[in-house]
Formats: sequence, C-alpha cells, structure tokens
Amino acid sequence: MSSSEFDLINSIVRSQSVRRDDVTLGIGDDCALLNVPTGMELAISLDTLVSGRHFSPDAAPELIGHKVLAVNLSDLAAMGAEPAWVTMGLTLPDPDEVWLAGFMRGFSALASIHGVQLVGGDTTSGPLSISLQAHGFVPVGKAIRRGGATPGDLVYVSHKIGDAGLALAMLQGRVAPTVELHMLRQSLESPQPRIELGIALRGVATAAIDLSDGLASDLGHICEQSQCGAEIETHRLPLSAAFDTASDWRLAVTAGDDYELCFTIDPSQQENIAQLSHELDLRLTCIGKMRQQPGIDFISADGSCVSGLRGYDHFPEGGR
Amino acid sequence: MSSSEFDLINSIVRSQSVRRDDVTLGIGDDCALLNVPTGMELAISLDTLVSGRHFSPDAAPELIGHKVLAVNLSDLAAMGAEPAWVTMGLTLPDPDEVWLAGFMRGFSALASIHGVQLVGGDTTSGPLSISLQAHGFVPVGKAIRRGGATPGDLVYVSHKIGDAGLALAMLQGRVAPTVELHMLRQSLESPQPRIELGIALRGVATAAIDLSDGLASDLGHICEQSQCGAEIETHRLPLSAAFDTASDWRLAVTAGDDYELCFTIDPSQQENIAQLSHELDLRLTCIGKMRQQPGIDFISADGSCVSGLRGYDHFPEGGR
Repeated sequence: MSSSEFDLINSIVRSQSVRRDDVTLGIGDDCALLNVPTGMELAISLDTLVSGRHFSPDAAPELIGHKVLAVNLSDLAAMGAEPAWVTMGLTLPDPDEVWLAGFMRGFSALASIHGVQLVGGDTTSGPLSISLQAHGFVPVGKAIRRGGATPGDLVYVSHKIGDAGLALAMLQGRVAPTVELHMLRQSLESPQPRIELGIALRGVATAAIDLSDGLASDLGHICEQSQCGAEIETHRLPLSAAFDTASDWRLAVTAGDDYELCFTIDPSQQENIAQLSHELDLRLTCIGKMRQQPGIDFISADGSCVSGLRGYDHFPEGGR
Repeated sequence: MSSSEFDLINSIVRSQSVRRDDVTLGIGDDCALLNVPTGMELAISLDTLVSGRHFSPDAAPELIGHKVLAVNLSDLAAMGAEPAWVTMGLTLPDPDEVWLAGFMRGFSALASIHGVQLVGGDTTSGPLSISLQAHGFVPVGKAIRRGGATPGDLVYVSHKIGDAGLALAMLQGRVAPTVELHMLRQSLESPQPRIELGIALRGVATAAIDLSDGLASDLGHICEQSQCGAEIETHRLPLSAAFDTASDWRLAVTAGDDYELCFTIDPSQQENIAQLSHELDLRLTCIGKMRQQPGIDFISADGSCVSGLRGYDHFPEGGR
C-alpha cells in the first residue's frame, strides 16, 4: 500500500461518522481490535457482490453502497442479531475517487442509521466487486436459526415480496414495463434490512431467513433444516398491485433480492405478531403453514397446486 | 443458492476437518455464531486476492488455497493474535469442482496446522477472486500495534526477505533466472505465517507489521504511526545467496510477498530475541534501528545512503 491506495483508504475513513466504544482499534493496522460484550455471541456474515451480477456497473454508486451493506445487514436481521461492525474488501478497476465518494455516501448513510462502524478491509485493483462482512451481537442461545420450525407453525413474510424481481424483469425486458416500474425499482436498488424486526423476533420466531434468492429457495432452506415442508396459499402473498397485470405470483416467489424476512411462529404467537406489526409499522403477513411432508406446495385460491419451484442459483449450469 | 451452488458449498464443508468448541454454529445459516473467550479481544483482518494480480490464474489450486490463508493469518501474526476462525468469499468463473477440491486441500492443510475453522462465507460467479477474513484472539491490551516504536528501538525481521520478490522478477523475466529459482519460488508460492513468533512477541516487541508490500513500505508504516524514522544497514539484511549474483538489496526491500514479520524492540530485549530465535528455530535478524528523524535511510557498508524507496502500490497510477 502506498500513496494512492493510501488516499483511497483515507477517503473511506473520512466518510465514516460512526465511532463505537467497543472498537479498540479500527482501520489502519494489521488487524482491527474489537470487544464482544459479555453474554453475547458474535454473529457474522460475509457476502460478495459482483458487478454485472448483483448490481449493474452503471448503477449510481450511492445505490451500490447502500445495497451491499443492506444485503449484509439483512443476514444479521435474519438471526435476530444487533449490528455492530463491518469490514469491506473493495476491488476497483481504477482508483476513481468520485465513484468511491458516492459509494461511501450510500454506505455510510445506512451504516449511521444502524450504528455500524467500518473497522477494516482491503482495497485492491481488479474487476469491480465488493466483499462485506457484518458483525453483530445476539444474547447467548437467543439467535433465530433456520432449523427450529415444526409442523403446524405459521409462515410469515415482512412487507411485500417480488417487487425487486419484477423491477429486474422489466429492466431486462422479460416483462413489459408498467408505470409502477419507478416504485418497484426502489425495492431492487434500496432494500431495507429488517434489523428491528429480527431483534423483536428473538424468543418468538421458531425459524427465520432473509429472502435473497426468492421465497421458494429460501423457505426451502427452513424446510430442509427443520426437516419438514410447507404449504403456501398464493392469494395470501403480499404482492404489489403491479402483479395483477404485469406478471403472476410465480415470479414473486422465484425472483431474489427481496431482503425481507421469512419466519415461522407457533400459532399461539399470532397476537404478538399482530402487535409487533403495529409497533414497527411494518406489514407482517401469514402466508401459510409448515407441515410434516417435505417440499413446498403453492396452493392457489382455486385449489390448484404448484410444487418444485426454485429460486436464484448462482451457478445455474450445474456443478458436476 | 440452489443445487449446484449447494454442491460447491458441500464440498467446501466436507474438506474441513477443524472443529472448535467456540463455534456455536458454522456454515449453513444466515450467520455463523461464535464465542470470544473472556479477557480476549477479537482481532480481525480481511484480505482480497485477485487472480492475475496476487496469484497466477495458472498456479496450482493447492498453492492458491495455501497462500490466501497464509497471507490472511500473517496479519494476525503481526498483532500477536492467536488464529481461531476464517470466513471466505469465493468468486469463481465456473463451478469447477476439481479446481475447488485442490484449492481446499491447500487451504485446509494450513488451517489444520493452526487450528483454524472455516465458519462461513459466500460463493458467487464472476472473475476469480477470493476474500478471506481471519479472526483471532489476543489478551486485552496485549496486541502489538504499528505505532509503539520509539527512537533507539532495534528493527528486526524474521527468516529472510526478498526471495518471493526475486522469484517473481525471474518468472516475469525482469531478472535472468538462476538455479535458485525453484527454491525462491517456494517463498512466493507457499509463505509461512509467523503465528508462533507473533504470540511470543506480545509484551516484547514495541511495534510489528507483516511484510506484504516490501520492507520499505511496511517499515514505513511503523515509522509513520510511531512518528519516527529508521536507519537500515543493508549488509545486515537477511538475503539469500541468489542476491549476490542475480540482483541487489533494493529489490529485496521494495518487492512484496515476503509475509515475514518486521518488529521493533527496546535494546534491553536483545537477549530475549536471541533466545526466542533459538526456541522457534527461526532466524531473527537485527537490521537497524529507529531514529527521531522521519523517513528510512538504507545505509550500505561503504557508507552510501539511499532513501525514498517505496514498495508495492495496488494503484500505482495515482488516485486523483
């Protein structure tokens, strides 16, 4: 690392406003030095976002900065963890300070909201990609895992699903664009990590996951790890009105990028969830229930049933 | 994530043998859940290695797997931290299971030596690059930082420096290859993180850094952060015999990829360092001393002095 890389790192450091007491040493040495509070487990998640795959290289850098952090914090939310620190490996084709300043604006705005401090990372030259690791705390034994659901549990999702997928389909010309595109696009470009919801679900949800690859895949992980299946009623899916004309629910459950939470609860907790939805001012919709039989059936109002749906695969050509 | 990505992750998980008691939950959920021992600070370091820049795309995957982890653990060593966990963001052009198996063999062999468990990560499709975060422990207040050196402290390096840089120069045709290339190449391709040395230097070294960008740059960071300078006697640099004929000491202090430790001590600790060198069976060479005046002078046996040397810059074209 020398002057110009040093300049880049300096401009990253300067764009940071969050200073946490649990950080002994942040950016600028061989390692960051951090303190996990007593009684807390450390929850960590690493995500890599590649230009042209997870975001458009032409996207506004502010939006990219927001999204990489949102996606990362969303994993903490799904475990019920409270965010604390983040590290970033930034690979840039060239040291473009203007791009970086925009990127860091988007990143830092979201980091400030959640009190997250950037404590370390690496800048290197190469094809644009960003690896981010989020670090959070959850009281020992209180993390919400994927494997805790049992048959009879109710399945919920937060807010709406499918908007990001529909926006992408319109932008890629797979679906004819409608007037709603502008609104839908916000879900794609500026997802909101459901941190408060995740924390409130500690001790309430039996399982949770964030929707990154589509409900069909992600709820599939809850099913596999909980060794059960699920029945989803498609007319209960919280879909935008744009789905009435532009597409159907299949897109909403197979497209990724929602970053909403999907969680399961014992039916006795229904009232709690209604109360929580009110308190957080966040729609929480029961879309079906867990069952003993493996697999996920999507059941329409007319009684027809679709199964075997899959969401996003990062290596769709197969790996063998 | 679906079947083929799932297969890749499964083959990564299967290649892992280390199981640590402080890991509540490893790979397979939204986050890993980890426990930092009481009285310890968490030391973390994230590095990104890009194909064609940090390693040759044609290199044996075993060597790449070894090197990405070695480079990462080297940062822990420089702080005196004991390694515990690692996370990996792996971006692959295609899901090549044979390449991945080789990569994980190299990775896991080194991980086993140091008792490091792979606890999470991300696999995605794109230009080959690897982001790795190492996590280690160091007793509260005992980490060795870059900023603790004072004028009069002696400067040491471990083992030898320059072999990796000379090998690279020979491979790239900048220096005529000699019979030593095979031996030199081992330093380039298979660096050894100096973990035991780092731990032993707690409370002994006043400052430390690992040599990734070359002594001139890396000792420069100790100087800047300690607000002093250094005088290095070039005839004391521990160089391979190949330097006598093929190149000179300038290459050894400006080339990167050594991953040896450079550290400073109070002169009263000299006997301790000699003893430690014996115990660890590792050459530890005093190469000069810290001084008040900023900058680093490299002084040859004939009294001539070279200053202003710089090591590797990831963005050499300048960033403004």
